[in-house]
Parts: sequence; structure tokens; C-alpha cells
Amino acid sequence: MTDKNDKLNLWVTETHKDIVSMGFRAEETLFSKISEYQQVDVIKTAGHGGMLLNDGIVMVSERDEFVYHEMIAHVPLFTLAGPERVLIIGGGDGGTAREVLRHMTVKRVVMVEIDAVVVEACKKHLPSMSGSLDDPRLELLIEDGVKFAEKCNETFDAVLIDSTDPIGPAQPLFDKEFYENISGLLSDNGIMISQSESPFYDPEIQRSMFSNQRPFFKKVHIYTFSTLTYPGGLWSFGFASKGPCPIKDFDPGRVKDSKLETRYYNPDVHRASFALPEFIKNDLAGLIDPVPF
Amino acid sequence: MTDKNDKLNLWVTETHKDIVSMGFRAEETLFSKISEYQQVDVIKTAGHGGMLLNDGIVMVSERDEFVYHEMIAHVPLFTLAGPERVLIIGGGDGGTAREVLRHMTVKRVVMVEIDAVVVEACKKHLPSMSGSLDDPRLELLIEDGVKFAEKCNETFDAVLIDSTDPIGPAQPLFDKEFYENISGLLSDNGIMISQSESPFYDPEIQRSMFSNQRPFFKKVHIYTFSTLTYPGGLWSFGFASKGPCPIKDFDPGRVKDSKLETRYYNPDVHRASFALPEFIKNDLAGLIDPVPF
Repeated sequence: MTDKNDKLNLWVTETHKDIVSMGFRAEETLFSKISEYQQVDVIKTAGHGGMLLNDGIVMVSERDEFVYHEMIAHVPLFTLAGPERVLIIGGGDGGTAREVLRHMTVKRVVMVEIDAVVVEACKKHLPSMSGSLDDPRLELLIEDGVKFAEKCNETFDAVLIDSTDPIGPAQPLFDKEFYENISGLLSDNGIMISQSESPFYDPEIQRSMFSNQRPFFKKVHIYTFSTLTYPGGLWSFGFASKGPCPIKDFDPGRVKDSKLETRYYNPDVHRASFALPEFIKNDLAGLIDPVPF
Repeated sequence: MTDKNDKLNLWVTETHKDIVSMGFRAEETLFSKISEYQQVDVIKTAGHGGMLLNDGIVMVSERDEFVYHEMIAHVPLFTLAGPERVLIIGGGDGGTAREVLRHMTVKRVVMVEIDAVVVEACKKHLPSMSGSLDDPRLELLIEDGVKFAEKCNETFDAVLIDSTDPIGPAQPLFDKEFYENISGLLSDNGIMISQSESPFYDPEIQRSMFSNQRPFFKKVHIYTFSTLTYPGGLWSFGFASKGPCPIKDFDPGRVKDSKLETRYYNPDVHRASFALPEFIKNDLAGLIDPVPF
């Protein structure tokens, strides 16, 4: 903290549903721009490193981003045997791409981010995430993921929907038509992962998401993880599969052989993340498939 | 929300380590008293029901207390076959006692709460938790748990340390002497559960706790759960055992046979809660024992 800020009580605060708020002590604004789609800010915080906010909603902090990015990437990619082609929708900070690219079997990553300003902000101020965007295996397209999914002719082993909440530019990423198009891009054993909000606060969004996904997949599951920067702490991803089961088809040997160093993910956490508290099972009854432990 | 509050922007806010804060929209103060030990408040919130705060730190909210109380009680009590005698240290709101008393094998619960004002506040304003305190199987003692543990001659199958943070009156509940005395009160197959803080924010407290516990137990484990009202969301309990293993000696049939209705706990969650993210394993290396999945 610089001297001049020692007496400044600066906090960046996000409010959810007007009933709960999270605040992070801030030191200074590193980046602030209004793009075609949203306001994009990077704040230097006192205890959570650099923090990206879109329209005032925390996207990532350097302190805990490893959890989200390890869990969106490694759970599907270690469920598959030798995944080669991965599509990322959103994920402009680069954290998801970074973890995907750590898989040596991956030959090609296409990342479709709608907002060039998010990429610009993260390239300048969050290099530990955005550094991955220069990898030669990655093609970064600045365009609308919904339109991309309509016209794309490639096939992918995994599609990772690393989106914001279903408001603003990300809203159509939660629609039936989009999931149908993504399903069409997947190989016969493909997996789609989708950011699926807070089990405590957003069960109605989850119900809508999963009922929109179900018609186009063999099985739809949900798995959970912990964040420091999203309201309620507990967060989730949807695991929609054309074939592979995240428990039966998961081989912990692949994790060991990869020699990948992680800070959150490991084979025990992989399996445990599919164990659902009773309230989640009840909230999503009939909309998600049980996993065989 | 009453009319008069529609325009009042009232929030109750807790700050942790001066870097993160959690706020909850409030409607009114239901109870506020300074006891011999701490300031005790019950706030009616807009989205989280009644909320108990000791010295401004959130203890429980009606919205999510089921998670904490199911996890502190059912994990040890379903690891044991037919637990009969349970000691609760702290837990003045009554939520832990409520879940313990749902086990039909339990014949006697002794609860030692230091602060009568906490019990008074919860009896008046949080009856869904404190109602259990009238159960004839429960003996409530208003006294210092540390002194109680020194002089007690009874033996218990499980001791649940449902304490506040290691500041103020709860500080000695994290000391070696206390753990040694608790170990002496346990039956040969006894289990001690202790509130063990945030894995993200408080690893130094956890290291101190577990190194203080280890000399007096055969095995010391940690398990995690999610709360809405503690900083960082992810929280933990220590599982210190004189014999039983929370995985090998856990029989899911006991849960089924009990017909106990839960909102968070179930056999899958029981096992999954012991699966530790890499950063927790690293932070507590050498201080906790691995569990055999």
C-alpha cells in the first residue's frame, strides 16, 4: 500500500440481489473503460491482488482465480482420454486458456471473447492469466460466441463456457438455441462445461440453464467449488456430456502422469466436487443426472 | 420489510483482516446487549432471516445455519455406531444441540456455554435453533468450557467444540491444555470436532490448532463445508479421533436407517467433505492425517 493510501478507506463492493454484499479493500484503479458491451475495471486490492470487474461485478481476483480456472479446465479434460481440441466461449482474462494449455494433449484452442476491452485490460494488468493468450496453439477471436456457435464448422472435444452472469452480453449464452449449437460442435464423446452460478442464491437460473441443456446431451451433471470473490462462496459448473461420465470414465492415473502442479484440483477433489448437498439435489430434481460414486 | 424501512439503506457488515467484508441488508435490531464477555446482537436481515453476531462477527443466520449445524453433528455421530453421550462446548444458539438430539441413540447431551446472554438472545429471537435447549436429554450449564473440561469426570462419545474465533472468551478453547483435557473426557473410540476457521484466510490459526491437538489423538483430520455468512464461504472443522476413521468406519446404512431429513448432509457429502484441495494439504502438511478414500 502506498503511503498516500494509508488513510484512505477505499473499498470495491458488489451487491447481490440487494441482500448480500462483498467488499474488498482497494488501493487504486489500474484500468477503467466503458466498452461497447460493459464497463471494465481492474482494481488493485490490498488482500486479493489485481481484480477484474465487469459492470461492477467481480470476475476474477489474482488471489483465488486458480480455483475457478483449474476446475473449469481439469475436470472435463481429465475425464477425457487425450483431448485435443478445446473451444472456450468468453474467458477474456485468459485464466481458462492457461489451464487448458497446460494439457500436453491439447493441440488447438479456439477462444471466442466478445469484448476486446476485457482482453486489453487483462493483457495490461493481469499477466499471470493473460500470458496464455500468446500461446501458438491458441486462436483468439474477438466476436460474439452465440454467432460463432451458429456458423462454426469445427469439432471440439470440450467446450468451456466461461461466461458472466445471464445479464448483459452473456444473456444468450444461457439459451436453448446456443446449447443446441454447441452440442453440434462437440465430438461424439464431447463435454460442455458451463458457468452455472450460486447454488445458494441462484437456483432459478440453474433450473432454467439445465432444462435448456438437457435435450441436447446424454447426461447433465453439476459440480461445485469454492471461491473468495463470488457471493456465497460456493459456486458451480454444469457438466453436460455426449458420453463420458465424470466419475466412471475418470482415470486418476492421467492426473498423475500429467505431472501437472495444481493448487486446488486433484483426483479426490475431482470426484468430491460432484457430491451434492441435499438442498442442491432438491432444487434441481429432475433436471440433472445423478453420478455413480 | 416494514414500510418505514423501505428507504433505509441499513446493512450489517463484518470485516475480516481488514481486506474483505461481508454485508447483509438489515431490517431492524431485535436484540442488543453487552454481556460480561462480549456484545451480543440479533439482527433481522432482509435475505438471511435472523442473524446472531458476537462482537460484530456473524455467528449464524437462519438462512444457512443448517449447513454448519448438520456438518458439526452428523459427520462424527454417523461415524460412530450408536453414540450415546455428547458434550457441546459453546453453541449457545442451540443449533448444534438440535442436530445432535435428532440422533435417537443419544441419551445425554451436556452443553457448556459461557455466556448466558447468548442463550437469552437466541431463546427470544432464534427459536428454530434454541428450541432444542428444552429437550429433557440436554443439560445446559452456563460456565467456562475450559474450567469444565478440567474438572469434569464424565466420559463422552463425542465432544463438539462449537466456538467463536480464537479471540475474546474463546481463545483458551484453542490451547493445548484444553485439548488434552477434552481428550481425557473421551471414550476409547471418542471423536472431538472443533470449529477450525477459514482454509483460505486462516491457515496460521489452523496450523496452531492442529499442532496443539495432535499429541492427544490417534488421528487428526480436517473437513470442509460452505457457509453464506463466514468470510470466504469455505469453512472447516477439525476431526480428532481416538480411533474411528471418518471414511473407513463410516457406514452410510446408518444414515439411511436413521430416516433423518437433512438439507446439506448426506453420505456422499460426508465422504466428499474430507477431500482436500491441494492448497489445504500444503498449508497443513505434517499436521493432519490423510484419509483413505
